[in-house]
Amino acid sequence: MTLQAEKAKEFRELHHRKRLLVLPNAWDVPSARLFEDEGFVAVATSSAGMMVSLGYQDGEGIGRGEYLRAVERISRVLSVPLSVDAVAGFGKSPHEVAVTARSLVRAGAIGLNIEDFDPETRKLFPIGYQVEKLKAIQKTGNALGVPLVINARTDALRYAPGDDEARFEEAIRRGSAFRDAGADCIYPMGLVDTDLISSFVKALGFQTNVMVRKGLPSIKELEKLGVARLSFGPSASYATMGLLRRVAKEVLDTEPTPVLPKGR
Amino acid sequence: MTLQAEKAKEFRELHHRKRLLVLPNAWDVPSARLFEDEGFVAVATSSAGMMVSLGYQDGEGIGRGEYLRAVERISRVLSVPLSVDAVAGFGKSPHEVAVTARSLVRAGAIGLNIEDFDPETRKLFPIGYQVEKLKAIQKTGNALGVPLVINARTDALRYAPGDDEARFEEAIRRGSAFRDAGADCIYPMGLVDTDLISSFVKALGFQTNVMVRKGLPSIKELEKLGVARLSFGPSASYATMGLLRRVAKEVLDTEPTPVLPKGR
Repeated sequence: MTLQAEKAKEFRELHHRKRLLVLPNAWDVPSARLFEDEGFVAVATSSAGMMVSLGYQDGEGIGRGEYLRAVERISRVLSVPLSVDAVAGFGKSPHEVAVTARSLVRAGAIGLNIEDFDPETRKLFPIGYQVEKLKAIQKTGNALGVPLVINARTDALRYAPGDDEARFEEAIRRGSAFRDAGADCIYPMGLVDTDLISSFVKALGFQTNVMVRKGLPSIKELEKLGVARLSFGPSASYATMGLLRRVAKEVLDTEPTPVLPKGR
Repeated sequence: MTLQAEKAKEFRELHHRKRLLVLPNAWDVPSARLFEDEGFVAVATSSAGMMVSLGYQDGEGIGRGEYLRAVERISRVLSVPLSVDAVAGFGKSPHEVAVTARSLVRAGAIGLNIEDFDPETRKLFPIGYQVEKLKAIQKTGNALGVPLVINARTDALRYAPGDDEARFEEAIRRGSAFRDAGADCIYPMGLVDTDLISSFVKALGFQTNVMVRKGLPSIKELEKLGVARLSFGPSASYATMGLLRRVAKEVLDTEPTPVLPKGR
């Protein structure tokens, strides 16, 4: 087995322990490297953080080429498994999404997040189409000898028609379909409430990913609820920009020396 | 006069007021945009911050192409004047450095920092060679109708032979030569001490740039000493990474919710 295949195996297994897998989302080289240095067992990327740091809105406006170069830069500096946020797959068909998956494996990724809505229109893809994409990604990884760990995200809680209950039902319908299609983990964006998390995990009986957000239960509670994986999302990149804003204000209002650390 | 030429003129004039020009050094798109949004009148780049965020050591290892693409990304989101850290000019001759300067003007820059040592060997270039580079840059800007604001950096205080006094003398010798060659500001890296700053400014009788560093006098004192320009250097990028390190430690030690802000 190659090193990359071993990393995929190791990363997949991290979804099946009692202990919650806490995944930091990097957006550039130093943030990725710092997370590894501090001791995280794996690193993910945040598309929002990465795109914004390169001057694009979140989504696929960056284009596949520049996106892949950014992933390669991050991959180069990591030893731990790297799972990338692949937005909706940068493709207009399951075949094109598979081409993206192949490039991501070649860039060093061992897992990916894949969304079930069009980032331009914010409309959900039909379930059948998303299932075809997931199968195409899985097939691509297997063919390359790197069984990709697929985190299938659904934005039904945000974009499905109907009231909150209808959206929750749609999230479960999609999560179940993606699970059955071979995904390793289901990521319902916007799942924060303790009772809803509990209902979702029970309904699926499967690995579930939640994102750090105000109101989210503690890690211990999440573990009790059976959640498998917790992502930072773009919060860490926003936090650093918040600090920079404070530094900027202080410099403009007063003096730089008290707030800025030692130079080199 | 084009908008870019007007920005060059405006930026040059900021070096000739009573008030110190405080320049924040950005390293990527959001840091640059944030500095402009917060009210800085101009934005500079930090080569250390920019290279590290792209996975390279400070210097010219990134290569001219990727360096220029990074400058273009930052330039695209700014309205205020942009002065870029051009390291030693990404060239092995005054002609090649002029080609870099032309690309930087085309990328939207109106000023640049240029160093007088080889980033690979850390040896100072001969004064005459550096003077030729400065003249070539100036000629290039003028030919394009964008009179570039040149911040001529000298690392004599770090890399010149001899003791501290000899290095200081060499910094003055180089600063004077660069001033006479047409530079707009002289940037002696490592100048921190109040008495030395005072001696340097008096010896040159010219616009001088200092960098934020522990021990640096306050902005008011710098203004009294006749300093024209103060740069953050890479300190802001280090500060944000310091915050991220703290966040990472806290998440690994305890729980993420207290330290991370609201998600989107």
